Parts: sequence; C-alpha cells; structure tokens
Amino acid sequence: MSVTKAKGFEAAGFAAGLKSSGDRDVALVVNRGPSQAAAAVFTSNRAKANPILWSEQVISDGTVSAIVLNSGGANCYTGAFGFQTTHATAEAVGEALGVSSGDVLVCSTGLIGSGDQVFRDKVLAGVAGTASRLSPHGGSDAAHAILTTDSHAKEAVVDRDGWSIGAMAKGAGMLAPGLATMLVVITTDADLPSATLDAALRAATRVTFDRLDSDGCMSTNDQVTLLASGASGITPSVDDFTFALTAICRDLALQLQGDAEGSDHDIAIETINAASEDDAVEVGRAVARNNLFKAAVFGKDPNWGRVLAAVGTTRAEFDPYDIDVSINGVRVCRSGEPDEPRELVDLNPRAVHVLIDLKVGAAGATIWTNDLTHDYVHENSAYSS
Amino acid sequence: MSVTKAKGFEAAGFAAGLKSSGDRDVALVVNRGPSQAAAAVFTSNRAKANPILWSEQVISDGTVSAIVLNSGGANCYTGAFGFQTTHATAEAVGEALGVSSGDVLVCSTGLIGSGDQVFRDKVLAGVAGTASRLSPHGGSDAAHAILTTDSHAKEAVVDRDGWSIGAMAKGAGMLAPGLATMLVVITTDADLPSATLDAALRAATRVTFDRLDSDGCMSTNDQVTLLASGASGITPSVDDFTFALTAICRDLALQLQGDAEGSDHDIAIETINAASEDDAVEVGRAVARNNLFKAAVFGKDPNWGRVLAAVGTTRAEFDPYDIDVSINGVRVCRSGEPDEPRELVDLNPRAVHVLIDLKVGAAGATIWTNDLTHDYVHENSAYSS
Repeated sequence: MSVTKAKGFEAAGFAAGLKSSGDRDVALVVNRGPSQAAAAVFTSNRAKANPILWSEQVISDGTVSAIVLNSGGANCYTGAFGFQTTHATAEAVGEALGVSSGDVLVCSTGLIGSGDQVFRDKVLAGVAGTASRLSPHGGSDAAHAILTTDSHAKEAVVDRDGWSIGAMAKGAGMLAPGLATMLVVITTDADLPSATLDAALRAATRVTFDRLDSDGCMSTNDQVTLLASGASGITPSVDDFTFALTAICRDLALQLQGDAEGSDHDIAIETINAASEDDAVEVGRAVARNNLFKAAVFGKDPNWGRVLAAVGTTRAEFDPYDIDVSINGVRVCRSGEPDEPRELVDLNPRAVHVLIDLKVGAAGATIWTNDLTHDYVHENSAYSS
Repeated sequence: MSVTKAKGFEAAGFAAGLKSSGDRDVALVVNRGPSQAAAAVFTSNRAKANPILWSEQVISDGTVSAIVLNSGGANCYTGAFGFQTTHATAEAVGEALGVSSGDVLVCSTGLIGSGDQVFRDKVLAGVAGTASRLSPHGGSDAAHAILTTDSHAKEAVVDRDGWSIGAMAKGAGMLAPGLATMLVVITTDADLPSATLDAALRAATRVTFDRLDSDGCMSTNDQVTLLASGASGITPSVDDFTFALTAICRDLALQLQGDAEGSDHDIAIETINAASEDDAVEVGRAVARNNLFKAAVFGKDPNWGRVLAAVGTTRAEFDPYDIDVSINGVRVCRSGEPDEPRELVDLNPRAVHVLIDLKVGAAGATIWTNDLTHDYVHENSAYSS
C-alpha cells in the first residue's frame, strides 16, 4: 500500500527500459486532493542533480500535484541537456494529468553523469506508461520502481484515528546525512498547510534520516517529499502529526540501514550525558565514519580503542580520560581504562549497540551506521553507481 | 643508515618480546651532541596515548638527549599505571645513558588499551637491551624495531654540503592528518637551535605527513621528532634546511602511502586553481575520505561522479557546474559534464592521479590517499590494532 494507504493518492510503477534488468524503473505518485499541500527536504550536497534543482523551485510555493521518480540514471552532471530532460519530464506528467508542470516534483537515481537522449526518451515513455496505470492500489508497484541496489522495497504506514501516513523509500548506499542516498515519498490524508508540513518534516528528518550515516558518503540526488491530500478531512495537532511522521521516518531509516550495501551489522552508536545534542551527534558521527572501527565490527572485534580514537577527533566537550564505552551491554572501557573483558562482547548478532558515556551533561543522540565489509567493497568496486 | 646517517647519533633495535613474532620491538636513538636541540609535532587527537602526554612535556624546553620507541603496544588508555610505565621507561633510558629522564622522548605503537605489568617489564628489559647495543651503524636495526603492520622499514637520507638528514618512519594504517598513525624520527648534524627546528618541522609536516590521508582515521600515538646534534659544525640557512627537511618528509610520507594496509593503488588528489590552499586541501581531503570513490579505484572504475559528489560536500569556493576532473590524464568531466570517454582511463598502474580544476583562483594542494580494498577490510577486521 505504502504511498496509496492515505486517501486521495494514486500511484503506479512501470518498466521503461532504464534498468538493464527490465525491472520497473519509473514511478508516479499523484495527489488527487482536495488539498495539494506539500513539503520537501533535499540533499545539502552542493553538487545537486538536475531533478533537485528543478524540485527546489517546484516546492517553493508549497503546492505539489504529483511526483515522478526514475531509477536507472541520476541525471546529475549532465548539463543543460539534463536539466531540459527534467523539465520535459515534468511537462509530460503535467500534460498526462492535466496539471501544471510547475506543480510536479521530479526525482532521479542511478549513475551520475548518465542522462543522454536515450535516457530522456525512455523516461518520457515511462511517464506515459505510469500515467496510464495510476491506481489507488499502486503503492507497491511504485515502491519497487524506485529501487537501485536495494534488495527489497521499503514501505511503511502509520494509522491514526481517521487519518494515516504512508511512505516508500529507496536507498542502500551513499547513506549519509543531508540526506542519505535515498528517495522518500510520504503521503498523508491529514489536512495540514504546507508550512506545518514543512516544519514537521524538518523536525522528523533531523532525528531520523539525518542520523543515518551508513558510509559517510553524501548523495547528489536525495529528496524526502511529504504530500498531504486533506482527504480525511481531519486536522491533527501538530504534535500528533510530527510524532507519527517521525515514527514513519525512523521506521524507513532503519529499513535503509538494514539493507545497506554489503552490510553484516546494523550499528547504533548512542552517545549519552553529552553537553549538547550537537556534541552527541558529532561524537556518534565520528565513530560512524571510522573505517577501522567499522572493519573491526565486521570482524566481530569489540575494538573500543578505535571508538575512543574516533571520539578524540571531535570538538565535543569531554574529558578524554573519563569516558565509558559499552558494546552490546559490556562496559569494555571505564573512565578511559580497560574494564570488563572484551571477550564477553557478543558481536554475532546483526544488531550492535555502542554506548558512549561522555559524563559531562544530559544530552544524547543515536547515529545509525553499518560495518565495513568485503561485500561493501565488492559492490562498490564492481558496480558503477 | 637512516637515523645514524648524520654525525652525532647512535641507535639500536632489540627484540624484547613485545611482538608475538619475536621480531625487534624496542628502538633507541641517542643524540651524542654537541648540541641536543630538538623539535616534535604530535597527533592532534584529543585521545592521546601516555607517551604523547609525556613527550609533550619533554619537548617543551627544546632539548632532547634520546628517544625510545616500542612497537607491540600503544600504552594508550591504560590509565595512571600506563603513564607510570612511560615515566619508568624514560627513567631507565636516563640511567642507562647518564642523562636526565626529562630529556628522553618516548613513543609507543600497537593495540590501544594494552599496557599491563608484563608490557612494562618487557619494555624496561628492552631499554637495557637496546642501550647495550647502541652503535653509529644501528639505524636500520632501529627502523625495523618500530614496525607494526608495515611490510618493510622506511628510511630516507638527504646529503648536503657537509651536513645531512636521516630518518626512519613506521605507519601502514590509521594514516590521517594530525598526523598519521606513524612514528617518525629525523636526525641531522646541522647546527640549528630548537626554535628553528620547530619552525622547519612544522613547515615540512604541514605539506607532507599532514597531507597523507590513507583511511581518514587519526591515531592516538603519532609523533614526528627532529633531533639535531650540531656535529657537522655547519649552520645551513633556514630555507635550505627547511627545503631538505621537506624533501625527506615527503619521501617518507610517500613510502608510508605505498605500504598502506591492503592498498592496491596510491592516489594523488591534486586540486588546482582553488581560491586558497585551505580550499584545495579541504577538497582533496573530502575525496580522499570518500569510501565509494576509493572502492571504485580498487575496481579500476574512473567514477568521476563520486569525485564531484565528494567535492560538493565541502565549503570550498567553486561553481559546482564548472569543475573539470581528469583521472590519469583523461579529462572525464569538463565544466560539470561528461567529456572524454571514461574507457580511456587506465587504472591498472598502482599510481593514480586525480586532477580537480576548481577554476576560481591560483592556489593548489595535493592529498595522498589509497584505495579501499578487500585486503584493507581483511587486515583491519582480523587484526586488533
């Protein structure tokens, strides 16, 4: 169901030949209203793909009729021709649906630098194909059409009293903040104005997608979009809506983590008793980006020295010699000295919990990452993406 | 010869049982004078090993009689007991040589968190063993004793008219700025005061060791030490000395790069026409830390999209759509669009040159890194360090 769970939405997925596998590769999600309020957040990478440049303009008035997404090509660093392709794609959607192209978001994912005439022709054919297949039950088809190296579709729904949120996501590599290499479409039939959607979306992504840092690499094409149809006729409180939206974003973020390219372990790095939330995030991110620690987890080695070496590179407030580190419940380091035997740590399960106690304040944050494995190297050396 | 090339120095290496392999693991370098001027730079990691805490005190007066180094244990995060071990090590050297322990630098490398009574006993026995073997020809023995996962010793010498510089280094992983996971001892018989040595050493390391970023991980034990005996009786100009010192540091940095754990390629990332040197360094470092790009090089895939995606994460001054990227002489991206065919790029040689033209200024810098390989993952998942 995913993006067609909430009332007022139709979706479709279509195989337009962009993927050599012949799988579905173009998705369309349409908001039938009555409201067409929307919000979106984009990659903070200054190297932005053409669909991002386009979509940033579209979202500026807070109104979106439809979003079209393709896998099989990022349309990034393809110059003026590539931007014209994005524009033509939005025009084609507008014509097929009878809406303004200025209300059509575009997302692309795949190899950077690919976006030639063949790509354009296939995308435009894909728009026609998806538009003719739109259905209130097309959510799963759409969720499959946006996948790249993902091993399965990511969908989530949250049901509330009379209103709901549904979502689909893709992303399996280049998962880093601001955002990850991911495309996410979230739909709701709650009746909320775009300013509220925007605030809720930024609040939700700040503590979910932005804290997923699989491999420290930031994408050029990331986009998280929230579309609200108002079809339930219900206006939930901002708090209730933000809570539900955050829950669905966390659900999807953890699905992305669990399907990260080549990963053997899902690592949650929880920093507690920090002087500020920013400090906790900085510390968690430094550990999440430490290749030596990530390789050690792959090798089931509870190498807390590499954790502290990473913590020491940050500007966070702490006493370097009064930090505790626990791994999967075993306090292997207490006040900067070896404590419980590292042999007690069981790193066989996929889930790994690293707890870093900075002992200087009351703030905390969790960063989610993955281990560094042979399969990660294999997938990213053998596959051009 | 290395550290005993310059007149006035003796050195030795000894197998004290710290390494399970039985290889040499304690090194001693002694400055017989007449001058004992010295300078040192240390890791900028706030998580500093006990030998760093000790050596920062020793170097503060610019006078050093000897430096003792051990592999087989980092003596980091070993608490007060570990600091006492470092102190006792310096005391033992002082007694053996008849010098003040306050003029004895200590370096350790190996597993963080290891530094128990057995470690202490072996190090102290190692001090006696090396002190009894000191020789003006002991440079190579010392260079072997400091190795960890290195596949071979790193030595270099520079000869000038009447004076010379010799050096030894170890380092094969955790190579990142500030500094790399490395220990370096440089000796010279030039007659220069410690303030001049300090300025020259900082100038040289800034453009050599600090621009080596093999795996983005910063160590807790790094130290680069420069000892000057004055035994040549010659005082070269500051410029001549700094030039020679920079040459020897670059030589060693490239030796470290060439022996980086599990690496298949040595990658030089040269950024040109930047608005400032800082910008060029930031851009180069961002690319050097991009796992996706590094895995692509391992796979011999000239994936310039990953280069631009990394460049886009920086704050450097540039137009994201007017950047050129060449890989091994082939301009695969011109003004942000595909240019020469990527198939022309030959990534079979070990040496890889990535040239990034930001087109906004006249500054430049080169960062040296390595690819991300199966062997890197294997070595760092199977080996506790």
